[in-house]
Amino acid sequence: MTTDSFRPKEKISTFYPPQRTLLGPGPSDTHPRVLSAMARPTLGHLDPVFTEMMEELKSLLRYVFQTKNLLTFPVSGPGSIGMEMCFVNMVVPGDKVVVCRNGVFGGRMIENVERCGGIPLVVEDKWGDPVDPQKVEDILKKNPDAKVVAFVHAETSTGVQSDAKTIGQIARKYNCLTIMDTVTSLGGTPVYMDEWDIDAIYSGSQKCLSCPPGLSPISFSERVVDMVKNRTEKVHSWFMDINLLLGYWGSTTRTYHHTAPTNSLYGLHESLVMIYEEGLERSWARHQRNHEALKAGLETLGIGYVVDAAYRLPQLNSVHVPAGVDEKEVRRKLLNDFSLEIGAGLGDFAGKIWRIGLMGNSSKLENVIFFLEALEHVLTDLGVQVNKGAAPSAAHQYYANNPTA
Amino acid sequence: MTTDSFRPKEKISTFYPPQRTLLGPGPSDTHPRVLSAMARPTLGHLDPVFTEMMEELKSLLRYVFQTKNLLTFPVSGPGSIGMEMCFVNMVVPGDKVVVCRNGVFGGRMIENVERCGGIPLVVEDKWGDPVDPQKVEDILKKNPDAKVVAFVHAETSTGVQSDAKTIGQIARKYNCLTIMDTVTSLGGTPVYMDEWDIDAIYSGSQKCLSCPPGLSPISFSERVVDMVKNRTEKVHSWFMDINLLLGYWGSTTRTYHHTAPTNSLYGLHESLVMIYEEGLERSWARHQRNHEALKAGLETLGIGYVVDAAYRLPQLNSVHVPAGVDEKEVRRKLLNDFSLEIGAGLGDFAGKIWRIGLMGNSSKLENVIFFLEALEHVLTDLGVQVNKGAAPSAAHQYYANNPTA
Repeated sequence: MTTDSFRPKEKISTFYPPQRTLLGPGPSDTHPRVLSAMARPTLGHLDPVFTEMMEELKSLLRYVFQTKNLLTFPVSGPGSIGMEMCFVNMVVPGDKVVVCRNGVFGGRMIENVERCGGIPLVVEDKWGDPVDPQKVEDILKKNPDAKVVAFVHAETSTGVQSDAKTIGQIARKYNCLTIMDTVTSLGGTPVYMDEWDIDAIYSGSQKCLSCPPGLSPISFSERVVDMVKNRTEKVHSWFMDINLLLGYWGSTTRTYHHTAPTNSLYGLHESLVMIYEEGLERSWARHQRNHEALKAGLETLGIGYVVDAAYRLPQLNSVHVPAGVDEKEVRRKLLNDFSLEIGAGLGDFAGKIWRIGLMGNSSKLENVIFFLEALEHVLTDLGVQVNKGAAPSAAHQYYANNPTA
Repeated sequence: MTTDSFRPKEKISTFYPPQRTLLGPGPSDTHPRVLSAMARPTLGHLDPVFTEMMEELKSLLRYVFQTKNLLTFPVSGPGSIGMEMCFVNMVVPGDKVVVCRNGVFGGRMIENVERCGGIPLVVEDKWGDPVDPQKVEDILKKNPDAKVVAFVHAETSTGVQSDAKTIGQIARKYNCLTIMDTVTSLGGTPVYMDEWDIDAIYSGSQKCLSCPPGLSPISFSERVVDMVKNRTEKVHSWFMDINLLLGYWGSTTRTYHHTAPTNSLYGLHESLVMIYEEGLERSWARHQRNHEALKAGLETLGIGYVVDAAYRLPQLNSVHVPAGVDEKEVRRKLLNDFSLEIGAGLGDFAGKIWRIGLMGNSSKLENVIFFLEALEHVLTDLGVQVNKGAAPSAAHQYYANNPTA
């Protein structure tokens, strides 16, 4: 039998992606150092040279998460696997789990609780608002048997940041474990896992860590590890069972579990080395400074923010689409004419907002200026009256007045 | 608060992996074309240019799987997630699942069935033997209510190949769906998903596809898709629920599900383009030819195969360690003195066999010769009497007598 009947009819050849400027909600632009790292020769996943690098990766992740947790490692899958890994290990059928929903990802957490057989107790806040810690306390008072509190630190769908420290304290007061999503916050704004008393945390490689998507850094407290070790019912997922993963990512053994994604891990290692070189405080300050410059520029165009200044994420700028403007056409023109990507709104925000990411390697002066210039251009094209040059000028002015420390 | 207390104490810098020759059970050497592809600029996962490439990926995967299944795509995770995705969608609590175990990965399938709440009916065969189709038929006769038959086409732990066509026919006769593991076979030996009537198939990127580890090509028949659509109980896993994945990897919609690992997918695309250029038949023939040359060389050293010739995988050569030889020391010396990796035995085979992979880009003349030469050298170092030069010579002879068609 010949295999040709299944051959693609069209001719398929090497794929050459265009060079974009990625200013959406993630992925951000992968740093050239990270791209180079991923193109280095593959090693066996049990090679002693590779396992040494794994130890460095764990140290570097403890630094960015600000934790001493031994069980800190990158999951071999995207952030949604990181999320699921927390729930599937920590929730057994019948468990009550407080889930705070103020955007898309809180909703996904509820799905996870249900699929684990848990009972979600939902704390609702408006899209664009932070989680209200008082509501968390109220629901815990009424449900003293709740076991876990889960919330999103930085909601990628809205650009809002919640008060993780206060939520962490409340959860502890009511004897609950905490699960925190830091997919968009890690590396861009302060995350202090240990100081905030967070038990399980996960993130993604493709936002403020400047890697391609595909890996999910994760960390679990001793409390979680002990609890999972003592589960009577097996974790539903073989791949995500941390009892098994401990054998591969633990510090003393290297029992084969799955084949680690070597080259993606080289990339993550390099991006973490870059944060280690820059220093977390300086990375956070850089994200803040570029955000302020962008805001100064957007103000000249009359474009305002969705989220209140007190809770705004510097790395993810959710802004209102000006009245009468076809937002889809603006994004299309930015992509086609300037090879520049920004994000659309999700859910209720679809068609109403843009999400402008300044994350990781994408958070830099040249991108802020380029974007503001391009946006002026596109809006003019679409017949919006714009005071040309004012937006980049305002950003430049902000930079001049606020030099890097 | 300063972040410095969590900074790694040791200085950590860029990781430069050594150049190995990977002749273990996977990963194999990533082809330079694939490495280059992965280092290209990241695109947004909903970028129209990227989604066009996704369609090509699906076509190319249909070619290597030899299937027309619409739901054919690379899972954003390693082969073990591919395996779990099959079970978690196809097995509901109480389902009887025939699992054939003749090595490590059949054992892992049993774990998966149990964690899905299914009842595994185990067909046991000796490690190194293929699955006995008669035993499959016997167990199905006794269990007419069995729902699924799961087996490993190419057992990575032993190097044996099972008769997928016959097992597929038997399963169909008893009205069962089939799950087949092709992690080690795909691209190296014939796989005919549709002709063999297989319903669910998964593989890995890091063996005969010459990519780094981290992706799991997968395909489901319409029968599976229909069954999963009609499940009354939700799939336990949110990430692996094919009802949700259909929205992202389906052909008409691009609903955001998770952020696809863009750069790893560039790599897989390139490796599949290479197979498409070479042609499947020629790729299979190349694996066979290099296997025969290796075997000719090993024979001069008195090294014999674990698996009977009729069921031997050309891409994974399981051979007996010569009596009195410290196999670990041989592997250590190959790695340290020649930067060459071969694999150890697992389970009962630990310490008794080597697994020599000639997979994908690693399956080439220069590797066969280099390995035989290095092995002679190491054995001599360890005091084994070797007729120096005989092994590479025998391989050369084989190549000369069997030119590429």
